[in-house]
Amino acid sequence: MERDVLEDLAAASRILVDQGVFDAAGHVSMRHPDDSNRFLMSRSLAPALVSADDIMEFSLDCEPLDSLRSLGASPSMAPAAGDRKPFIERFLHGGIYKKRADVMAIAHGHSAAVIPFGLVATPMRATYHNAAFLAAGVPVFDIRERFGATDIVINSAEKGAALAAALGDKAVLLLRAHGFLAVAPTLQSAVFRAIFTEVSARVQLQAAALGGPIAALDEEEGRKADAVNLATVGRSWELWKSRVI
Amino acid sequence: MERDVLEDLAAASRILVDQGVFDAAGHVSMRHPDDSNRFLMSRSLAPALVSADDIMEFSLDCEPLDSLRSLGASPSMAPAAGDRKPFIERFLHGGIYKKRADVMAIAHGHSAAVIPFGLVATPMRATYHNAAFLAAGVPVFDIRERFGATDIVINSAEKGAALAAALGDKAVLLLRAHGFLAVAPTLQSAVFRAIFTEVSARVQLQAAALGGPIAALDEEEGRKADAVNLATVGRSWELWKSRVI
Amino acid sequence: MERDVLEDLAAASRILVDQGVFDAAGHVSMRHPDDSNRFLMSRSLAPALVSADDIMEFSLDCEPLDSLRSLGASPSMAPAAGDRKPFIERFLHGGIYKKRADVMAIAHGHSAAVIPFGLVATPMRATYHNAAFLAAGVPVFDIRERFGATDIVINSAEKGAALAAALGDKAVLLLRAHGFLAVAPTLQSAVFRAIFTEVSARVQLQAAALGGPIAALDEEEGRKADAVNLATVGRSWELWKSRVI
Amino acid sequence: MERDVLEDLAAASRILVDQGVFDAAGHVSMRHPDDSNRFLMSRSLAPALVSADDIMEFSLDCEPLDSLRSLGASPSMAPAAGDRKPFIERFLHGGIYKKRADVMAIAHGHSAAVIPFGLVATPMRATYHNAAFLAAGVPVFDIRERFGATDIVINSAEKGAALAAALGDKAVLLLRAHGFLAVAPTLQSAVFRAIFTEVSARVQLQAAALGGPIAALDEEEGRKADAVNLATVGRSWELWKSRVI
Repeated sequence: MERDVLEDLAAASRILVDQGVFDAAGHVSMRHPDDSNRFLMSRSLAPALVSADDIMEFSLDCEPLDSLRSLGASPSMAPAAGDRKPFIERFLHGGIYKKRADVMAIAHGHSAAVIPFGLVATPMRATYHNAAFLAAGVPVFDIRERFGATDIVINSAEKGAALAAALGDKAVLLLRAHGFLAVAPTLQSAVFRAIFTEVSARVQLQAAALGGPIAALDEEEGRKADAVNLATVGRSWELWKSRVI
Repeated sequence: MERDVLEDLAAASRILVDQGVFDAAGHVSMRHPDDSNRFLMSRSLAPALVSADDIMEFSLDCEPLDSLRSLGASPSMAPAAGDRKPFIERFLHGGIYKKRADVMAIAHGHSAAVIPFGLVATPMRATYHNAAFLAAGVPVFDIRERFGATDIVINSAEKGAALAAALGDKAVLLLRAHGFLAVAPTLQSAVFRAIFTEVSARVQLQAAALGGPIAALDEEEGRKADAVNLATVGRSWELWKSRVI
Repeated sequence: MERDVLEDLAAASRILVDQGVFDAAGHVSMRHPDDSNRFLMSRSLAPALVSADDIMEFSLDCEPLDSLRSLGASPSMAPAAGDRKPFIERFLHGGIYKKRADVMAIAHGHSAAVIPFGLVATPMRATYHNAAFLAAGVPVFDIRERFGATDIVINSAEKGAALAAALGDKAVLLLRAHGFLAVAPTLQSAVFRAIFTEVSARVQLQAAALGGPIAALDEEEGRKADAVNLATVGRSWELWKSRVI
Repeated sequence: MERDVLEDLAAASRILVDQGVFDAAGHVSMRHPDDSNRFLMSRSLAPALVSADDIMEFSLDCEPLDSLRSLGASPSMAPAAGDRKPFIERFLHGGIYKKRADVMAIAHGHSAAVIPFGLVATPMRATYHNAAFLAAGVPVFDIRERFGATDIVINSAEKGAALAAALGDKAVLLLRAHGFLAVAPTLQSAVFRAIFTEVSARVQLQAAALGGPIAALDEEEGRKADAVNLATVGRSWELWKSRVI
């Protein structure tokens, strides 16, 4: 695996801070490019501070591995897994990679504009072409339904699996009283989707305040516009990345 | 054509980012000052990154031309058109230049505060003198009405013409589930109008939340205040430009 | 007159930009400290760019004077009045200085959060102690009522006088479809009032969205809290000033 | 007492500015680590400007002490109490430290998003896990009820005691037409709670605009999630602190 992959994953974390999607928390992961049974994710760290050296490797059961070291990385780049503390919420990521073979990257955050849609009955809509991936529908995962009163954290494989089931085949999942996650076929598009989930939420909040029905993208428009977004995400990515390196 | 013209057009792109109207996307164009059958517009690029060297020249049919080079520009400044990738949405610009001889510049963006007005029945109003150009009315273009379910992109001369027809003789057009465009008799005033479309949208969203009728500018007030704006835009332009050079 | 006075007036202009009250427009003036029949105000310039050298002197009839030069200022500091273009809207200031002997400074801007209150029937309230000066009531001046359809600009002594009459003995006046002005017994407190008019407007917009009556300051609370604000404004002023010099 | 303690308290003040909770006003205090009958708090100063040298020591009756000097601090670090002007509102802090032995730190500010909840009947809710400390309930202190029309300032031991009584055993108290305060068992968690009171207020304002009931954290979820927050606050604190030193 190239060092570039680790640097892009770390940049994704900092981009999501810079674009206002992550605050002092939030994490982004990607499936290992050479082994679909592993994924990469930062150690437990504020997302603004993540660098390539903080990336850890996990099995889909969320066990830390130390193969980054064995691949020839410098010790500072990849200390043995045991030296570093992983995010508890890695189970959120592992659960989805297990169930969704098409998902190559996942971003999870707590944007103030998105959380409201996990608290009320109003469904999220795809308010414009950049949010096309929302047009297929945005389910809400309420951890209470299966697990009762919890601390909200997705801290077990069982919770990760329940959350993956709630996501189904969609691109975005709202977590009640918690936040949201976005999945995508590439790291760049997972970042894109996290950003425009937040922007579209702001647009919808404002449209709702005006009142009346919202002429959002329908499913067919959403599919077509999403294809354009996936094909052109590189232009946005380069700009976003240039701001955090 | 002076190099200054290209630099002003590039500055307009960066100004609209700096003022919060453009994000990672958005584009601004101007009619060629010496040939009303041509227009100038950046190659496909994030608007924050546009410099004079990125400006391309197009026929009103949106064919790339390479006359910038023939005018004596340096090769780095104006590589042959074929070397650079134009925006697909140049058809949005070309369609309007064809139909509206009075239009000398066009800005198109996806501001979060403006999109709601393309999704609901509430018409945009001119909430204050800086938004006077809205008082004549702000139509909405719904691409579905003529083209069915699309990817939303204005990617053909036919769509550009339909959009220009929807604009009519107005200064601003809302594109449903997409964004907006502002046209003006000068580059500076197109930038001014794009900026104050966004600000006025925010004002109206807040006024709507208070409830009741809105005592916006009427058409006559709008015409009179717009004349003042057009005459004094230079003061704002100089400030905005000073922030991006 | 001390140079410090001119520098404070220029700083006031830049402070109001830095604090988000002014954008590319807006102006602040003060009564001449040694001659109550004169006032000081920048030449026509974006408020972010104002320095002490841009300050002009006017009679209460808004005629430019050139006494700054005669007071020994350097030519660069105070060129003859005829060399510089004054703001057209100086009549807004002059009209008030004529009518209100207690007013020593005036700020006028177009903040997006404040304009809505000039467009709808909801009165502005004093949402917290820093906005205490609003508790006495905030009138709205609708230029249409006396002058019909205009370009909205306060461009004559007659309009300035009508506006001063609408202000009455209050601290803040809303101008329909235009903006607001704040007056105060010192320059520092005029800046304070302009800033907290904007903040309180945001607070009230959000409280209104929650619905129900608003337990704002009553008139007596307002008077008492305002006395505290006037006595302690220096602490805020020093901070604000430190950010713009 | 270590110098580190003073520096952390000063950093807390600057963090709350940097995170948008404090503006030109606001103050944070902590109980003396070695003497539960004393507390530490900046002299009267804009919170962005507070450094370790500005910290004063007070008895729980809010009398300034000068023991910082006697502890061997340099004169510049701890001038005699009489040389420095304390905040009038130290009574807000002292009243709580007297009544709540579990409280080790207090932050008090006037965030625009929080004030609305002190003005209307809508109770604040814990919109997500980071705001878990709100789930136990957020009382409102209306100074009018006991003290009539005042200048709103908590400027006496009697007012401080009344406010502490209104707080009860909760983590956050809203002050009508004034602001809010957050208390916690550590300095770091008081800062955390002040920040997420503000964020949760914004979330709730937006959720309210969507309409309908809000599926906020219930009390048991709140207790459990708060325990996680208290245990992991260090990760956020390190990030916030890194931005202000």
